[in-house]
Amino acid sequence: MARQGFKVLDSDMHIIEPPDLWQRYIDPEFKDKAPRGLTDTVGDLRMIGPDGKPWGRDTVAVRDQQRGRGQSFAQSQIRFKPYEERGWTGEVQLGAMDEEGIDVAVIYPSRGLFALTVPDLAPRLAAAIARAYNNWLYDFCAPDRQRLTGAGMISPFDIEDAVTESQRCVKELGFRGVFLRPNLVNGRTWHDPYYEPLWTTLEELGVPIGFHEGDTSALPHVGEQFGDNTMLSHTFSHPVEQMLTAASFCGGGILARHPKLKAAFLEGNCSWLPFFLWRLDEQ
Amino acid sequence: MARQGFKVLDSDMHIIEPPDLWQRYIDPEFKDKAPRGLTDTVGDLRMIGPDGKPWGRDTVAVRDQQRGRGQSFAQSQIRFKPYEERGWTGEVQLGAMDEEGIDVAVIYPSRGLFALTVPDLAPRLAAAIARAYNNWLYDFCAPDRQRLTGAGMISPFDIEDAVTESQRCVKELGFRGVFLRPNLVNGRTWHDPYYEPLWTTLEELGVPIGFHEGDTSALPHVGEQFGDNTMLSHTFSHPVEQMLTAASFCGGGILARHPKLKAAFLEGNCSWLPFFLWRLDEQ
Repeated sequence: MARQGFKVLDSDMHIIEPPDLWQRYIDPEFKDKAPRGLTDTVGDLRMIGPDGKPWGRDTVAVRDQQRGRGQSFAQSQIRFKPYEERGWTGEVQLGAMDEEGIDVAVIYPSRGLFALTVPDLAPRLAAAIARAYNNWLYDFCAPDRQRLTGAGMISPFDIEDAVTESQRCVKELGFRGVFLRPNLVNGRTWHDPYYEPLWTTLEELGVPIGFHEGDTSALPHVGEQFGDNTMLSHTFSHPVEQMLTAASFCGGGILARHPKLKAAFLEGNCSWLPFFLWRLDEQ
Repeated sequence: MARQGFKVLDSDMHIIEPPDLWQRYIDPEFKDKAPRGLTDTVGDLRMIGPDGKPWGRDTVAVRDQQRGRGQSFAQSQIRFKPYEERGWTGEVQLGAMDEEGIDVAVIYPSRGLFALTVPDLAPRLAAAIARAYNNWLYDFCAPDRQRLTGAGMISPFDIEDAVTESQRCVKELGFRGVFLRPNLVNGRTWHDPYYEPLWTTLEELGVPIGFHEGDTSALPHVGEQFGDNTMLSHTFSHPVEQMLTAASFCGGGILARHPKLKAAFLEGNCSWLPFFLWRLDEQ
């Protein structure tokens, strides 16, 4: 399907997971602790925990989302209706890729971006949520594992879990990378020695770590001071959280210690990069 | 002293205040509550409160400053020694401006950048600290009020105080502007309605508001997650705190509501501006 002799790869393609993904895929032990999507309406990614409370998002954002849905939401209802009706399967995704002229895609989640953005999430539950997502994604990719390849979800709440699941994602599920949110967990920077075993593992596996922000995280994030002003919070959350993480990789020494490690900073723009690299050098 | 036909204005010239500025200039009522500089060694701007505890800086930064002083500190000892020996007076400052070829300067503080970065600072004390600094600065400018002009310190802890002191700075002391740190006080964004009377006042007075960051603030600030890694925290604090404030002025509507208000964002670089304005527009 190459266009003008070029193959097209989407390095950050999102899919829409079913609202009951975790009810269907999580280890039975954690079934009554897992999050659940509130609706299967496209553009409404809210989830709730077993206690019925919002899962993974700051409370202001949840309030905002309930209050007004806006132009973007309305457009999504029209644009995505045909895909929603056909059920967001791997086959539907391949059809959409054909329309867009995309040969290969690395898949990132939608609801799944908020699955682990819960402060003080129990580490074993966090690991189970990641495993469940990855198992679901493996099934999703079944129609064509050459064109659909996953970025596996890993839990930063326990480094052993992150290492083990990274290995499983690559060796057993055939994924070509893993992802994290840039939001710090337990106040640890990404260049903290705690995460060293993960960077070593990914270097050995030869796959990249992709950082992907999602705004309105319940974990601390830049822009949260703007509260329910989504325009302003979203201006900052994606690019600046990525800058902070990129600083850990460059100035915090991760890439110096792991010269073969590759890191991707997704959906956060890049025109800040000349300024940012100059600033790091100057400092 | 114009160079090649151009007058040179330094819009952000720093002076070194005496460590006992507040003991000498604050209203007697607040004398036993004011901060005091620890030493008069150039490059060491630490202050303590009446309880002997660090004033205005995050504790990690204070620890770091006590531990190692580094290359920059050592260079300052040599470079600034002649001025230190002559006492950092207005006359000494004018001599340094002659050497540098600067005709006119707007003056910003050094220790004074940390005088009001104390969470939950009592509003009346904060206002007294600002008045004392401004009275000292008025005396400092006496040798030549045409060449030395102040940016007045105003307290964001009470809007009435900020308005009153802005008026006094301009009408009584002859200053050409006032300044604030970009760090949020009491979690209020700068476009919060609370601050409207200040923007109205500055618009009427026809003077700019200058925002000036100083890193290691005891108020919340971007980059604080990097703890005692000054290189990384300083990479972010100055430019990103300014971006967040500029967002309040552009996207938060301050400049739309006050079309004659001028705002300066100082010592925070500007090569991020093309990215930042594009991002705001896009959002």
